[in-house]
Amino acid sequence: MDKSKALQIVKEQLTENRYKHTLGVRETALYLAKRFNIDYNKVEIAAILHDYAKYRPVEEMRELLRGKEEAARFIAYGDELLHAPAGAYFIQTEAGVADGDIVSSIYWHTTGKPNMTAYEKVLFLADYIEPNRTFPGVEEVRETAEKDIDAAIVMALGNTIQFLISKNVPVFPETLAAYNDLVMERK
Amino acid sequence: MDKSKALQIVKEQLTENRYKHTLGVRETALYLAKRFNIDYNKVEIAAILHDYAKYRPVEEMRELLRGKEEAARFIAYGDELLHAPAGAYFIQTEAGVADGDIVSSIYWHTTGKPNMTAYEKVLFLADYIEPNRTFPGVEEVRETAEKDIDAAIVMALGNTIQFLISKNVPVFPETLAAYNDLVMERK
Repeated sequence: MDKSKALQIVKEQLTENRYKHTLGVRETALYLAKRFNIDYNKVEIAAILHDYAKYRPVEEMRELLRGKEEAARFIAYGDELLHAPAGAYFIQTEAGVADGDIVSSIYWHTTGKPNMTAYEKVLFLADYIEPNRTFPGVEEVRETAEKDIDAAIVMALGNTIQFLISKNVPVFPETLAAYNDLVMERK
Repeated sequence: MDKSKALQIVKEQLTENRYKHTLGVRETALYLAKRFNIDYNKVEIAAILHDYAKYRPVEEMRELLRGKEEAARFIAYGDELLHAPAGAYFIQTEAGVADGDIVSSIYWHTTGKPNMTAYEKVLFLADYIEPNRTFPGVEEVRETAEKDIDAAIVMALGNTIQFLISKNVPVFPETLAAYNDLVMERK
């Protein structure tokens, strides 16, 4: 899939603000990707398509994920998470994207997971810190990302877990596992 | 095991402050136990013995737990956790306590777990809110416990997870699973 085609597809499916966010994620992902020896074209396509399913009806995403053994687990942890695994499926069946790095980085871009690949790390962090993000704590994560991508991801995961707990809602277990994985690796 | 024997055993092994904490846990556990149809004698013995292994050498506890398939997982998550599963083993092998409710409530008293029994809930919460505890947030959990034990446990688990993340240290997965379990059950 070429970039202009990917941009056209998501522009049709996203709100103007969400499209602007997507362009921010693309810019940040390409910036972060320089620190790894990875394929910039794959990073860019993953960033452009990462919110592909953002505005799909929740019931359609639940129905899709119910049939998938691993992905069905997402359903219990809140509708906000569903667009990530659902998007990873839809870009394969609807947009013909087959690349494993693109698919897995979209699948895990909201929750994170232990043992993330460079592609998964770049998209997860870019989604959190792209220039249009303004939530509390994001500036500190941006500054940390300049020096240490893993440390920035630990902060992003920790902030997310703390935020969800402050709202008294469930936390997807892989988000904690991702945090634990990086914290232990860095000791 | 009778109470006076249990008190004597732990008095020998604990500091004066920790013994005072133990008496506070006993008082609070018996108070909370009134809300359940459970055996007060078992609640009391579990409370008295809950910190049985608190001052054992870390290396002795690690060595013990390494040999236990399930309990070995605790080792990676910090020395502070070890006295709970280690105590659950030592009270069986050294003090002859065989009761499953006592053993399991001591085993899980620091981390919590999903699907806690009434015994496990009572000891977990009593350990958190007993009158000698003074950390930030404890008063709110105490007040909540007057009305709703599960809500108080959710707060205690959430506070613990947020505290550990603020210190950039790992969080035992069952602590999050316990939180998720009660949050989802209460929706």
